[in-house]
Amino acid sequence: MANFKCIELVDEKLKLIDQTKLPLEEVYIISDDYERISLAIEKLEVRGAPAIGVSAAYALALSFKNINHKNDIHFEKVFTRLAETRPTAVNLFWALDEMKKSYESLNENIYEELLKKAVEIHNDDVDKCNKMAENGLEIFQKKTKVLTHCNTGQLATGGGGTAFYVIQNGFKHGFVEHVFADETRPLLQGSRLTAFELEKAGIPFSINSDSTAAVLMQKGEVDLVITGADRIASNGDSANKIGTYNLAVLCKHHNIPFYIAAPTSTIDKSCKDGNDIKIEFRSSNELNKINGIQITKSEYKTYTPAFDVTPNELITGIITEVKLHKPPYNFNV
Amino acid sequence: MANFKCIELVDEKLKLIDQTKLPLEEVYIISDDYERISLAIEKLEVRGAPAIGVSAAYALALSFKNINHKNDIHFEKVFTRLAETRPTAVNLFWALDEMKKSYESLNENIYEELLKKAVEIHNDDVDKCNKMAENGLEIFQKKTKVLTHCNTGQLATGGGGTAFYVIQNGFKHGFVEHVFADETRPLLQGSRLTAFELEKAGIPFSINSDSTAAVLMQKGEVDLVITGADRIASNGDSANKIGTYNLAVLCKHHNIPFYIAAPTSTIDKSCKDGNDIKIEFRSSNELNKINGIQITKSEYKTYTPAFDVTPNELITGIITEVKLHKPPYNFNV
Repeated sequence: MANFKCIELVDEKLKLIDQTKLPLEEVYIISDDYERISLAIEKLEVRGAPAIGVSAAYALALSFKNINHKNDIHFEKVFTRLAETRPTAVNLFWALDEMKKSYESLNENIYEELLKKAVEIHNDDVDKCNKMAENGLEIFQKKTKVLTHCNTGQLATGGGGTAFYVIQNGFKHGFVEHVFADETRPLLQGSRLTAFELEKAGIPFSINSDSTAAVLMQKGEVDLVITGADRIASNGDSANKIGTYNLAVLCKHHNIPFYIAAPTSTIDKSCKDGNDIKIEFRSSNELNKINGIQITKSEYKTYTPAFDVTPNELITGIITEVKLHKPPYNFNV
Repeated sequence: MANFKCIELVDEKLKLIDQTKLPLEEVYIISDDYERISLAIEKLEVRGAPAIGVSAAYALALSFKNINHKNDIHFEKVFTRLAETRPTAVNLFWALDEMKKSYESLNENIYEELLKKAVEIHNDDVDKCNKMAENGLEIFQKKTKVLTHCNTGQLATGGGGTAFYVIQNGFKHGFVEHVFADETRPLLQGSRLTAFELEKAGIPFSINSDSTAAVLMQKGEVDLVITGADRIASNGDSANKIGTYNLAVLCKHHNIPFYIAAPTSTIDKSCKDGNDIKIEFRSSNELNKINGIQITKSEYKTYTPAFDVTPNELITGIITEVKLHKPPYNFNV
C-alpha cells in the first residue's frame, strides 16, 4: 500500500522526507551526518516514535562509514547525541540499545555490520506494521467512521504505519467509510501529514480542529477512535501526542471505542504505570508562532506538554504486532 | 476595571480596536459607514456576541447621520445588511430589533434619537457586565485556578465582559490565583485576545492548546471552568465557541464545575432547546491558513462549525445580570 517513501537508504545516505514542509512541498533531506540526522529528529523533520528509532539506527551506522573499526568513544558520542534528541519516544532508546548490543558483539566490518543491523531494525518495523494492520482488522465490524489524532502512517514509522495502517487496511477491506483527522495542535501533524497520507491513500477524509472531535461524537459521526502511542507502561497506561487523553475522555462519555496501535517496542516495562513516563515539554514558540510567523506575544507564559497519558481504563484495546490486547493489560509478562 | 476601549463613539464615528491584529498591534478602525462596520463584524475585527450587537446598533444609527429623516427603504437595507453578518449571535438580532422598535416610534430627530438608543444599548451592556461580575462572585469560595475558552472580556462586549469580567472580579476580590487560557482554534481568540486582556488586567495566566485542558484537569490544576455563550435556549442548552462542549464533557469526567456567563439578551426563547439553535459554519481557510499563511492544502475537506451546543445537564450554573441561575433551567418564564 506504500506510495511514497519517508525513510530510505539511498547510496549509503539516509533520505528523509522533510515533514515540516508537508503537504505543501515534498522536499528531502539526504545525509550521512549523524549531527544533521539528530537535528532532523529535534526539528521534527522526521518524527513519529518508530520512524525516529529507525532514523537513529541508520545515523549510528552511517557515522562509522569512514571509520569502520571499533571506536568506543566515537560510538558513545554519537549514541549520546542521538539519545538526547527526544526524551519520550521509547523506540528511540530501544533502537539505540539494539545497535549498541550489535556494536558490542562486533570485531570487524563494523560499518557494514551496523548498517545491516539498522536495515534489520527498519525491516522489522515494516513487518510489525504489516502485522498490526492485520491484527487491527477485527476492530471493524461494519462501515465505520474513524477519528484519529496526530500522524501514525508511513511518515511516522519505517513501515506502513501504526494506527494509520490499521485504518488503511480497514479501508482496503471495505470497512472504513470516512476518516476525521484532528488537526493536532500545536504542530498540525493531522491537517498536514495525516491529510497528506489520506490523500495519497485515496481514503475519504476531512480535517477538524481538535476540539471539534467532541461535536462529531455528539452528532454520532464517530464510530471509533484509534491513535498511536509513544510509550506504553506495563499496565497499559499510554503516552501519546497531547490531545489523546482528551479524546479518550470524550470516547468514554459518548460510549465510543478507543484503540491504540503501537509495536511492542513502544512498551516500556520499566514503567509500572503512567506516572513513571517522563513527559517532554516543547518550546513556547509552538504556541506563539506558526510556521515561524508570530501569532501572539512571545512573553506570554505557556503550558506545552508534548504528550499526555491516557489511563488504561479508558483504552478499549491495544493493537501490537502480536495481537489485539484487551484489558486488563499486563505487559510485564 | 477598564484599561483600554474596544468600542467607543468618538466624534460621531465608531472607533473599534481591530481584534484581528491583537495582541501584536493595537490598531483602530474609525468609521461611520455601516458597510465598513458590517465588514468589521464579518471579518471578526469586532467579535463577541454583545460587542457585535452594540456595534450594529451604532452602525444603524450612524447610517442616518446624513439623512436624519424617516427612510424605511434605507433602514431596511442597513438592517438587513447588518443582520446578515453573523447568523448565530442572538445579541445582534436583539440589538437590531431594539433599534427597529425605536425607529418605528420616531417622527423627528431620527439620527439623534437612534444614536441615543445605540448609546443606551451600549450603556445597558456595561451595566449588565457589572451585574454579571457581581452575581458571579459566588462561584468562588477559595483561591481558584480558572480555565476559560475563547474571549469574553472587554473585547467581546460593550462593557467589562461576561465570563472574563466574572474572573476579573474574582481576582479583584482575591479569589483567582491563575487563569488557563485555551488558545481557541481556529481563530486563536484565547492566545491572542484573552491573553491580551489578562495581561492588561494583571492577572497571572498561561496559554495552552485546547486539548491540553484535559491534562490540566487530570493533574488537578483546574478548579472551575467558565465561558461565555452566543445563544442560550429556553432549557439552558447553550451555544458557544467551538470547543466549549468539549470542556463541559471534560469537566463532567473530572468532577469540575462548568459555568456560563452571558446577559439575558443571549437567551433565545424561540429556541426550545439546543436543536433549535442554528450553527454558523466558517470557511475552510480558518483551518488551512493561519494569518493568511497557507499551512495545509486548500483542497482538503474540512468540518468547521463556529459553535457547539452544550446540553443543560453539563452546566453547573448560568450567570446573567439577574442572578446565578441553577438547574433545572427554564428561561421561558
